[in-house]
Amino acid sequence: MTPVSFKALIDALKQLPGIGPRAAQRIAFELVQHKRDAALGLAKALEGALEKLGHCERCNTLSEEPLCSLCSSKRRDPSILCVIETPSDQITLEQSGAFSGLYFVLMGRLSPLDGVGPAQIHLEKLVNRAVDGTVKEVILATNFTNEGEVTAHVITELLEAQGVKVSRLARGIPIGSELEYVDAATVAQAVRERR
Amino acid sequence: MTPVSFKALIDALKQLPGIGPRAAQRIAFELVQHKRDAALGLAKALEGALEKLGHCERCNTLSEEPLCSLCSSKRRDPSILCVIETPSDQITLEQSGAFSGLYFVLMGRLSPLDGVGPAQIHLEKLVNRAVDGTVKEVILATNFTNEGEVTAHVITELLEAQGVKVSRLARGIPIGSELEYVDAATVAQAVRERR
Repeated sequence: MTPVSFKALIDALKQLPGIGPRAAQRIAFELVQHKRDAALGLAKALEGALEKLGHCERCNTLSEEPLCSLCSSKRRDPSILCVIETPSDQITLEQSGAFSGLYFVLMGRLSPLDGVGPAQIHLEKLVNRAVDGTVKEVILATNFTNEGEVTAHVITELLEAQGVKVSRLARGIPIGSELEYVDAATVAQAVRERR
Repeated sequence: MTPVSFKALIDALKQLPGIGPRAAQRIAFELVQHKRDAALGLAKALEGALEKLGHCERCNTLSEEPLCSLCSSKRRDPSILCVIETPSDQITLEQSGAFSGLYFVLMGRLSPLDGVGPAQIHLEKLVNRAVDGTVKEVILATNFTNEGEVTAHVITELLEAQGVKVSRLARGIPIGSELEYVDAATVAQAVRERR
């Protein structure tokens, strides 16, 4: 009953992370019925991104050039290297305005069950870069999830074995939050690391 | 810092209903980094749907042909006409297996503040069809939201003025639900319409 091309659109939308069958159906209808310009724009944006986006050969982040704009910038401090999981984390850190060094983007996190090991997140390349003589400190800014913490732990061991100084983003109570709504583990950490 | 084509993809995804800036960022990264095939598939599906999908000239639903498969089917009972808001509602009703008549898809609901009046939901066409001699009963299956109820009310007045028999889907307690979790208005309605 449903037209083939409409069904195909719903199925394609269901592939997006976080979009279930109902949401896909609603989005498909909205695009075809009320937002044809947005639909065409999305198709073009997808094709443009697939065609142009590769990875920065230095930091791995998504880039249209061999070297991304940050890695080729003369204003950044090459002696501090911040290790993050994804380009989204890079956007977040840049918005904070608190970091002026360079990045190394893992493009993932260690997750053996999903087939993501040290090679998939470029750990050898990271170690080579950390010991190249320019880098004085490596800041680990992987997520504070189980997998992010394990990744940070493994990287710490690898780098400290090479004598590289390693630090980790501070854990604690988020600014603006009320204590009673913060989870117990975070509060405990904040007590232990009080200053 | 973010590559132009990646930024463009995030912006295009933000246009989708229910997708905020964070979700758009996450989906864009996922598509470009891990799901390039899905991304290409979505681009093709969008273009295919935009190119092929029009509206059934009889019931308005999305269709690749001038007449949709239901309207051109000989197995459906043309004497009962079910009025619904969107093609998604049609999918839901067909899945219920309880209706064997034909549909009239409003492709929206009355919502004056959004500029949706009687003309946008094809009410004149609906009345003409209801009085064509074939239709014996019109079932209103617009949503049970404020706007859906208003739309049903307006259509009822229009059709009853022409002597057409109009019915509405039953309201009541959903099957499988526990009374204590059903909202008070629904319970009150179920008491009033007990049978």
